Amino acid sequence: MQSISFPIFNEINHHGILRVFELTSLPFKLVRIFSVGADAGGERGHHAHRECSQLLVCITGEITVSCEDGKSHAQYELSPATDALLIPPGIWSKQYYRVAQSSLLVLCDREFNENEYLRDYSEYISWKETS
Amino acid sequence: MQSISFPIFNEINHHGILRVFELTSLPFKLVRIFSVGADAGGERGHHAHRECSQLLVCITGEITVSCEDGKSHAQYELSPATDALLIPPGIWSKQYYRVAQSSLLVLCDREFNENEYLRDYSEYISWKETS
Repeated sequence: MQSISFPIFNEINHHGILRVFELTSLPFKLVRIFSVGADAGGERGHHAHRECSQLLVCITGEITVSCEDGKSHAQYELSPATDALLIPPGIWSKQYYRVAQSSLLVLCDREFNENEYLRDYSEYISWKETS
Repeated sequence: MQSISFPIFNEINHHGILRVFELTSLPFKLVRIFSVGADAGGERGHHAHRECSQLLVCITGEITVSCEDGKSHAQYELSPATDALLIPPGIWSKQYYRVAQSSLLVLCDREFNENEYLRDYSEYISWKETS
């Protein structure tokens, strides 16, 4: 797992935060973007990708991201004040939306392809053991 | 001014909303991304771009976007339920963050270049009259 830093600017005389993601600093060529919003207490994810790398950026709120590789487990707390989180292929991940109006921006290196998702945990473990 | 539609999916058995932005459906080649978050009542923008096109997507909350071209004025209410808003070059724009945790994702067709910003309104009007 790898954290990625983006420049963060706080503008003077304005409320709020501006975060700039220069695409040249991405660890891959950007192919697809999606955003996810959920209610406080919402839980999403529960899948792995065979091929797709994803960079997770918390835009608002607080999101706990749980990751495992079939052997070890790690947990990351994301907020607009933290770095982005790069999830490489082969990681089973869950996201917990801790407060209202939490949102995640996800930058991907591949087009959507349902065949590269692993949505069943026992299938994921079997795949990890053989890949 | 032009609104751009993106596919919006509501997943069953999960809280929240997933919005997918297929980059092939963008009206330009994506060069830069930034996000902006502000407190309720926060006001941002107050500038125009000589060259840069920007696609505004409200990720959370409610944001009023005011646009003018030096002659006429238009106002748009953005939320996660609305389309994105494409702002071409030469538009003076302001954004009002109406509720807490409102956030905007901005997709740009150019690298950051301070020289292509018009930050003074009277300079903007002069530029519009001569361009």
